[in-house]
Amino acid sequence: MKILFFSLLLIISTTVTNANDGYKLWLQYNQLENPSEWQKDCFEQYKINGSSSTLDIIDDEIQKASMGFFQKVANQEQNNPKLIISKISDLDLKKFKLDATKITDLGSEGFFIQELVTDSQDKTTIVAANTDIGLLYGTFHLLQKIQKNEWIPIEGIFQSPKTQHRLLNHWDNLDRTVERGYSGFSIWNWHRLPRHIDQQYIDYARANASIGINGTVLTNVNANSLVLTPEYLEKVKALADTFRPYGIKVYLTARFSSPIEIGGIKTADPLDKEVQNWWNKKAKEVYEYIPDFGGFVVKADSEGQPGPHNYGRTQADGANMLADAVAPFGGIVMWRAFVYSEKTPDDRHKQAFNEFKPLDGTFRENVIVQVKNGAIDFQPREPFHPLFGAMPKTPLMMEFQITQEYLGHDTHLAFLAPMYEEVLKEDTYVNGEGSEVAKTVDGSLHSHKLTAMAGVANIGTDRNWTGHHFHQANWFAYGKLAWDPYETSENIAEDWLKLTFTNNPDFVDPVKEIMLDSREMVVNYMTPLGLHHIMAESHHYGPGPWVTGGSRADWTATYYHQADENGIGFDRTSTGSNALGQYAEEIQTKWGDVNSIPEEHLLWFHHVSWDHQLQNGDNLWNNLAKYYQKGVEEARKNVKIWESLKGKIDDDRHQHVLSFMTIQAEEAEWWRDACLLYFGQFSKMPIPEGVEKPKYDLEHYMNYNPKNVPGI
Amino acid sequence: MKILFFSLLLIISTTVTNANDGYKLWLQYNQLENPSEWQKDCFEQYKINGSSSTLDIIDDEIQKASMGFFQKVANQEQNNPKLIISKISDLDLKKFKLDATKITDLGSEGFFIQELVTDSQDKTTIVAANTDIGLLYGTFHLLQKIQKNEWIPIEGIFQSPKTQHRLLNHWDNLDRTVERGYSGFSIWNWHRLPRHIDQQYIDYARANASIGINGTVLTNVNANSLVLTPEYLEKVKALADTFRPYGIKVYLTARFSSPIEIGGIKTADPLDKEVQNWWNKKAKEVYEYIPDFGGFVVKADSEGQPGPHNYGRTQADGANMLADAVAPFGGIVMWRAFVYSEKTPDDRHKQAFNEFKPLDGTFRENVIVQVKNGAIDFQPREPFHPLFGAMPKTPLMMEFQITQEYLGHDTHLAFLAPMYEEVLKEDTYVNGEGSEVAKTVDGSLHSHKLTAMAGVANIGTDRNWTGHHFHQANWFAYGKLAWDPYETSENIAEDWLKLTFTNNPDFVDPVKEIMLDSREMVVNYMTPLGLHHIMAESHHYGPGPWVTGGSRADWTATYYHQADENGIGFDRTSTGSNALGQYAEEIQTKWGDVNSIPEEHLLWFHHVSWDHQLQNGDNLWNNLAKYYQKGVEEARKNVKIWESLKGKIDDDRHQHVLSFMTIQAEEAEWWRDACLLYFGQFSKMPIPEGVEKPKYDLEHYMNYNPKNVPGI
Repeated sequence: MKILFFSLLLIISTTVTNANDGYKLWLQYNQLENPSEWQKDCFEQYKINGSSSTLDIIDDEIQKASMGFFQKVANQEQNNPKLIISKISDLDLKKFKLDATKITDLGSEGFFIQELVTDSQDKTTIVAANTDIGLLYGTFHLLQKIQKNEWIPIEGIFQSPKTQHRLLNHWDNLDRTVERGYSGFSIWNWHRLPRHIDQQYIDYARANASIGINGTVLTNVNANSLVLTPEYLEKVKALADTFRPYGIKVYLTARFSSPIEIGGIKTADPLDKEVQNWWNKKAKEVYEYIPDFGGFVVKADSEGQPGPHNYGRTQADGANMLADAVAPFGGIVMWRAFVYSEKTPDDRHKQAFNEFKPLDGTFRENVIVQVKNGAIDFQPREPFHPLFGAMPKTPLMMEFQITQEYLGHDTHLAFLAPMYEEVLKEDTYVNGEGSEVAKTVDGSLHSHKLTAMAGVANIGTDRNWTGHHFHQANWFAYGKLAWDPYETSENIAEDWLKLTFTNNPDFVDPVKEIMLDSREMVVNYMTPLGLHHIMAESHHYGPGPWVTGGSRADWTATYYHQADENGIGFDRTSTGSNALGQYAEEIQTKWGDVNSIPEEHLLWFHHVSWDHQLQNGDNLWNNLAKYYQKGVEEARKNVKIWESLKGKIDDDRHQHVLSFMTIQAEEAEWWRDACLLYFGQFSKMPIPEGVEKPKYDLEHYMNYNPKNVPGI
Repeated sequence: MKILFFSLLLIISTTVTNANDGYKLWLQYNQLENPSEWQKDCFEQYKINGSSSTLDIIDDEIQKASMGFFQKVANQEQNNPKLIISKISDLDLKKFKLDATKITDLGSEGFFIQELVTDSQDKTTIVAANTDIGLLYGTFHLLQKIQKNEWIPIEGIFQSPKTQHRLLNHWDNLDRTVERGYSGFSIWNWHRLPRHIDQQYIDYARANASIGINGTVLTNVNANSLVLTPEYLEKVKALADTFRPYGIKVYLTARFSSPIEIGGIKTADPLDKEVQNWWNKKAKEVYEYIPDFGGFVVKADSEGQPGPHNYGRTQADGANMLADAVAPFGGIVMWRAFVYSEKTPDDRHKQAFNEFKPLDGTFRENVIVQVKNGAIDFQPREPFHPLFGAMPKTPLMMEFQITQEYLGHDTHLAFLAPMYEEVLKEDTYVNGEGSEVAKTVDGSLHSHKLTAMAGVANIGTDRNWTGHHFHQANWFAYGKLAWDPYETSENIAEDWLKLTFTNNPDFVDPVKEIMLDSREMVVNYMTPLGLHHIMAESHHYGPGPWVTGGSRADWTATYYHQADENGIGFDRTSTGSNALGQYAEEIQTKWGDVNSIPEEHLLWFHHVSWDHQLQNGDNLWNNLAKYYQKGVEEARKNVKIWESLKGKIDDDRHQHVLSFMTIQAEEAEWWRDACLLYFGQFSKMPIPEGVEKPKYDLEHYMNYNPKNVPGI
């Protein structure tokens, strides 16, 4: 009977696993193999002190985990609990010999987990915090530990987030299209809101809370003022009410011209009293709907968006007007630094810096300047933005793109944590060595209390949320790095794999390697050696090094690669645009020399001759070709490795990922062939040995014009 | 141990049930309570004769069912099977004393199920058919019987479909928007096709096969010729290959002007040789991709679509040109009769009849004329289309709308089987009494072999496919009625509830009643007594009896209700447009008299004074008001009943349906209040006792202008 019993369990769990569409993300709560006494005790005798909607969520989470880990309901135990989840204020500190200050210091979102021994020698696992939200974070942390089959270290876990606002930015339009969205459409069903609260909203909040995300900007930065009308504010309120118990605040994008469009005023001049009054009243109205509304994100004076420039005002004038409007209610303004114009006759790379650096110190206290990862635009590899470190008197936040606008869209596996980590670890040198970008993000470099990170979401209506199952890992990684910008990609990859699939090292080890190498692979087959922005026009799907002409040079590929018979690359040194001059001296010295710049940035900053010799002794053209080939081979190898892992995880997700990996390997070839044919026109050098010959001629690639590419 | 074992099972099944997003539709395969020996035997000793991809699907289906019904894998048994699934050609007929002709007569899609006794007194359940697809249908039928806890009758089951082509029409655009789609976006991810075959495509085919649907028109009738280019035909082929083993053929909508748009020809004149050649070559090309391509659906000369009228040609000229192109390959053309023009100075109701009736006998053999359910447009209640029965020499097919363009969109529960059934049972009298519409659909009235039914799909990216969980029932009902136009709504509702939720009569009985009454409820609160097309402009969401003016009178509400101080209703008798003259004499006589016409059609055919006395002795105005009130009360009552059923099914779906039912009750009030205020201006009579007073004034309702309503 016992054997039957367990084999039955196995069958059931296998089947459940076999029909896995990925909706459960990293919250699979897979059955534990040989659970320990401690693991079982936590669910057989648990106690939650107090009551609130957040504590109800914690209770429900414990039940969900118990059903997954053990296939049975968890059991509350009031008198002799083995797991206690409690705010510090509700806990018998003496009994557990707890030093309250150590927990108090963790702040409003931190948590503490430790196995403590009472005088009567009972062992009890304690999850403690100053707030319910801290407890929710702590509970998720504990459950993740259990799923990964890890113990709580004897000295305990003390964690609190290193950034204050950890936000997803949804570039979602009110008609449910998503700009740069590749996983279906917006999960916000505005039409059904506010009356229907879909389960997916709750699952969204839960997933975010489980990785520490505490804010969501619901709407596209290319904003629609309609969202600020009562009809839509009611809908926003419904979402805010749903997210609140998960510790998630709601933010909106504010269209700068809203006073004209929905206010009936003739101007949106930020120094106009009537305009200021309108925003003050609008903010008051928003806070009547949503008392804990987070604030506004603004994209102004960029790519057709209205802004203070329309009225001859500065970005600070615009930001401060909105900041004053939300300040009485505790709101903040995230003002994007992504300001550039085709009318400015200067390297696009330089424009944000030139615009914002002089404004340092002129922003209100509740303004934070949101700086994109890269002065150009979220390229597969971009040097860190020169604004980081350059505005000591102004809080700056990092905007990472999670959705893969420039990294192959939905079907290309690119684990982005290494990209995020690389940039966060870059040294700005502004306060001497050790002035890493991460220190501007966590505020420590210039002692700012207002800190934040934004990630442009990759979430859509696809059944697995993110299109590619592995793109869930980028959402996860973003959350983990927003919580702690010093976390490592390797830890994140391993955690994600174990929580999402299995602890089996036969699966985790090779796949972790695939993940950690995947972003470099994409750089190899798309934009090696510092190439950038050579994607196809408008949708950025596939190669487009030939994109040229049109109304805006800074939207073409030829502007960025500058390929000609002499060489390739954008001279951003003092002999060129001198964008490099925006960085610290140490960087200027190192990157300014074609022989000392890290080769990964070579063509970003230098125009280099085709026969220029790289560190490996081979010339630039051959190196370029070999990088493209390398990327292709890596993508093919991933397919082989993944195929060999069939049976180690559920078939559904295995098949889905295999299908996407196969596409990725094909498209890596597409990239290689198109780029080598195109650049070969200028280098006039043969494709070196070891690099496959292109399948078609250049014309074929230039004429390929896929229709209805999503995400525009 | 045994108790633990079963309680564990119970817990597991409960949990699995508790997280039910509805994706599994009517294929839940819920655990059987107290399974019989016969039920168990079928899965413990089954045998499938032969091998094919369809038979693999059958095998997989038995495994899925076994896991659901019993939580264990099914077991093949070669020597002593208790269930045999076999083509008649692979079966030992003598052993089971089977008369082959009875099965041969079932044709290419029919099936036979019976429990047979051999000489050695072994009982074996046989599923037999002439084809693999017949076996697939038979297997689904058997599994549904088992889920419903029904037995196979001793005399056996002999079934074959009564219509030849049972099609879903997707009004899906290539950018994934869906015209009149309320459950998200198109499930066809054209961008990822042909390389990624999503599991949802397979699940779609499986769901359709389980209810006998054997064709799918992938694209919107407002067509895009891009789908006929090689780039897209490759994608269509990928879907066709996926659907083929499920017995589902793929069809496309053909944009009449394609020769101009993608052929580079200056005309699309159907009598032009170059145009004909282009279509002939295009058809040949399509069949090279998809050898069993079903054919084309065409919307021409209607609502801005190009057509033969542009060249002074007839609908037959257009249809025959396409028919000739696909005929060599066995394809058909479904030519829509929904042709009308604002330039024709005649009641829109009459235009299709006037256009098509004279063409009877002039269409090619592989043309079938696709007639919408109703001469106006899929209203909550429409008299049957006068074309049915009027074209004896031409096959006609019924086009039902499953998506609820005019029945409250996503959130209004309206079980549509009673609407379909009502129309199918209407007597056209063209061959004397007993000439029901169903007999034109199954071809028996005028001995046509080419028969078909189309249903405009309500399927989208929503996690439960159809937005409202109960709208799955309309997809199901459509399939069942396409298979057998004489099936009853009550059987369909009961089957669907048992397969989708539970056999528990405490749930099934009250909910079946809700379903069966629901369409009449919608008629009551939207368009009682024959009112029609008084929905809001363009999106048709909510009431719009005040819609008037603009470029097309036949797109306004005032055109249809004709309300004035004298009365309300469209005079379509001989004193008016005489649309009634398009029906048989028997109908003209009965419906032409304001006192003998069924009151449900009263205002469709008559302009009636406000104080006209109805059969209940009360006047028209009071009756109108009371119908509106009745609809509201029914919607409210449904909420109460549904609330009382909490715990009888999984919480997820219960909550979702409750949320939508609550919206429906609110919107029923909206309809009542807006319509009574509007019509009250003309009747100048007070709202009668028992009818609630409107919440707001008329202006409020007229000014309400919801944004971004889906489905346009």
